[in-house]
Amino acid sequence: MALLVLKFGGTSVADLERIRNAALHVKREVEAGHACAVVVSAMAGQTNQLVGWVEEAWGYEERQQNGEDASAHYDGREYDAVVSSGEQVTSGLLAIVLQAMGVKARSWQGWQIPLRTDSAHRAARIIGIDVEELKGRLNGGEVAVVAGFQGIAPENRISTLGRGGSDTSAVALGAALQAERCDIYTDVDGVYTTDPKIVPRAHRLDRISYEEMLEMASLGAKVLQTRSVELAMQRGVRVLVRSSFDHPGYGGQPPEHGVEGLGTLVCHEDEIVEQNVVSGIAYARDEAKVTLLKIADKPGVAAQVFGPLASANINVDMIVQNVSEDGYTDLTFTVQGSDLDRALEVLRKAQDRIGYFDLRGSTDIAKVSAIGVGMRSHAGVAAQMFSALAEKGINIEAISTSEIKISVLIDAAYAELAVRTLHSLFGLDSRERP
Amino acid sequence: MALLVLKFGGTSVADLERIRNAALHVKREVEAGHACAVVVSAMAGQTNQLVGWVEEAWGYEERQQNGEDASAHYDGREYDAVVSSGEQVTSGLLAIVLQAMGVKARSWQGWQIPLRTDSAHRAARIIGIDVEELKGRLNGGEVAVVAGFQGIAPENRISTLGRGGSDTSAVALGAALQAERCDIYTDVDGVYTTDPKIVPRAHRLDRISYEEMLEMASLGAKVLQTRSVELAMQRGVRVLVRSSFDHPGYGGQPPEHGVEGLGTLVCHEDEIVEQNVVSGIAYARDEAKVTLLKIADKPGVAAQVFGPLASANINVDMIVQNVSEDGYTDLTFTVQGSDLDRALEVLRKAQDRIGYFDLRGSTDIAKVSAIGVGMRSHAGVAAQMFSALAEKGINIEAISTSEIKISVLIDAAYAELAVRTLHSLFGLDSRERP
Repeated sequence: MALLVLKFGGTSVADLERIRNAALHVKREVEAGHACAVVVSAMAGQTNQLVGWVEEAWGYEERQQNGEDASAHYDGREYDAVVSSGEQVTSGLLAIVLQAMGVKARSWQGWQIPLRTDSAHRAARIIGIDVEELKGRLNGGEVAVVAGFQGIAPENRISTLGRGGSDTSAVALGAALQAERCDIYTDVDGVYTTDPKIVPRAHRLDRISYEEMLEMASLGAKVLQTRSVELAMQRGVRVLVRSSFDHPGYGGQPPEHGVEGLGTLVCHEDEIVEQNVVSGIAYARDEAKVTLLKIADKPGVAAQVFGPLASANINVDMIVQNVSEDGYTDLTFTVQGSDLDRALEVLRKAQDRIGYFDLRGSTDIAKVSAIGVGMRSHAGVAAQMFSALAEKGINIEAISTSEIKISVLIDAAYAELAVRTLHSLFGLDSRERP
Repeated sequence: MALLVLKFGGTSVADLERIRNAALHVKREVEAGHACAVVVSAMAGQTNQLVGWVEEAWGYEERQQNGEDASAHYDGREYDAVVSSGEQVTSGLLAIVLQAMGVKARSWQGWQIPLRTDSAHRAARIIGIDVEELKGRLNGGEVAVVAGFQGIAPENRISTLGRGGSDTSAVALGAALQAERCDIYTDVDGVYTTDPKIVPRAHRLDRISYEEMLEMASLGAKVLQTRSVELAMQRGVRVLVRSSFDHPGYGGQPPEHGVEGLGTLVCHEDEIVEQNVVSGIAYARDEAKVTLLKIADKPGVAAQVFGPLASANINVDMIVQNVSEDGYTDLTFTVQGSDLDRALEVLRKAQDRIGYFDLRGSTDIAKVSAIGVGMRSHAGVAAQMFSALAEKGINIEAISTSEIKISVLIDAAYAELAVRTLHSLFGLDSRERP
């Protein structure tokens, strides 16, 4: 017998039929002899409706039209009270469906466990989970259906963990319960070498390391919330990404049989026997490029540029500075596409202080990345990558690297071509690896 | 300064516009210097949707079709977890709307107060309310927006008080806080002498005693949940029934100015100076009549008839037994219309044991009642009533009376005529009382 955490996302519990399907997955694991804690999201669409009501209640749109920073004045505690109700509903419904199938189950709200968080309402961090009672009941054969995304903050108020927070709930619960595995049931059957819509020969990875998954998650492969992967890595929780739309009878082997073929296991790299140099190609189109032309190349200029952006809560990603000529240089960096207009406004206001000649913004860019822990021990990956892109006539506008990742910024028109080129280059096109 | 409890029902918080309207009523009372605890229902329609989901989760319809008594196996704790979420949402939204208007406010869930109930989930009874923290905050000028209908049961589970339970939440809170008054904002502007759809000259009562209101409530005037009136009577909470659709600027006088003209005050009869003999005419069409023909008129027969009905959870209302002839008699009684088929089935099964000749059921009946605490000191009200009905050719099939009520069972076709006749007879047709 193993203790498993199963998590079902919004599309997997979108209506009663799907909740019943999720329950069949749970039932299968129970019948295989596992103790199951199940974490549920709100039914798809519910959270958006609840957030919409909150914004309407606050007069969000009118305030924005009046130029107020409306979100700043929002009472996060009330937002959390309203929005957490979505998960409350699903937890109760799944418990009833399980009971109707003859499976012992009860629902748990964040405050009932309790799952304690800090008081950063709307994006609270988990402080601790008291699992004593939960554990006793799980060992007694009762399924615990836990409302994801929510916890209890100091002063006895409901808190939420930020959008996608149910993944974090599941991983945190997995850590606290020392679960064998945390299965994330979602609408895809795992993590792919790249987006199959762009590369039909992309294939599902059987295993991926935490570090790689973290790069994949933050680079736009929206399978898992980034924080949940960080937490899994830190606490050593093995996470299996799998599809809730597979036949519910599929799986349920005792843990010693392994999980191969069920989805993608996110785990420590030691658990991955055949490690490729590059595991996946990620891309993101939602960044924008800002270029400051002809700024003085002297100490303190960077602070003058990036200070005001940081104050305006704008995250800067890649930064490139050209070689200086006559004491002047060009500075290029990327921001989230949705922040571009604000970034340009902030910089225009600071023009006199920074002292640049011209300012340009563009959203016609894409960031393409090769990710793999194997890079650590393989030199020349970057060189291979740059020359393959050059062969296809793709111009690289900026480069950023980490130990396990190389990202290039290119013209958006070449995004698909670049992804396909790199996917082939690193031998990801078929299941037989080079 | 007074402490007021304000309660808004589902239609009064049906959408954001109406929640804003409710908030204006609250703001008016706050600006008049009152401390306000506000109890809210779920947005109209939400509770039905949530209950629908629970029944779907349990497979309610299929089970009924299979002849199971589906509701019996239902986990009330999970039902309560799901259904209580409706009030949670409204409480948070109203708190945000109040804050947006510059009124200090916070939401309170049943478990946060805590409002303790017994463990009779789906229809729990309030055991006690810890109002210390609430009171401190109210006195500090913060509006408490309390999710109605819900509480916390032993073992830390969410409970609900039964449909219409928010009225009871409001009255119980009024009692615990020793509120000056409990204002029930609803979609009608008070309690009328009878249904204005039947008698256009019906008028709103300025005041009505608890006892009368209790008779009105249980006889089909669906303004207040019966239990809330019982509780108000028992704890001496003055309840004002008023419309949330009145202009929100209307009202808000300091309490010493009285509440005349704002709605109907439900209060102790001592507070009612000019007491009419009859205060109102109620009617109910949802009863059904059952007649057992030719049963033995001997001791123990009643137990044989009503015992099986009680076991099947069928409430019997009026009972009439004819004069015995040759040791046999006819027995007529009424049950809820929705229980008729079950009642007939139960009695058919028991025919041999009871020993009756024939069994008849009919839903073509109406119960019309005259209600008034003044009856206690006035003889002859019943005689007046019977002869007025006789004059109109209305046959009385059964009679039941209490200290302050006379009810007659008549052919449903005569219901409106009977109501109009009695409304005139007891001088209720105009504001000038006889």
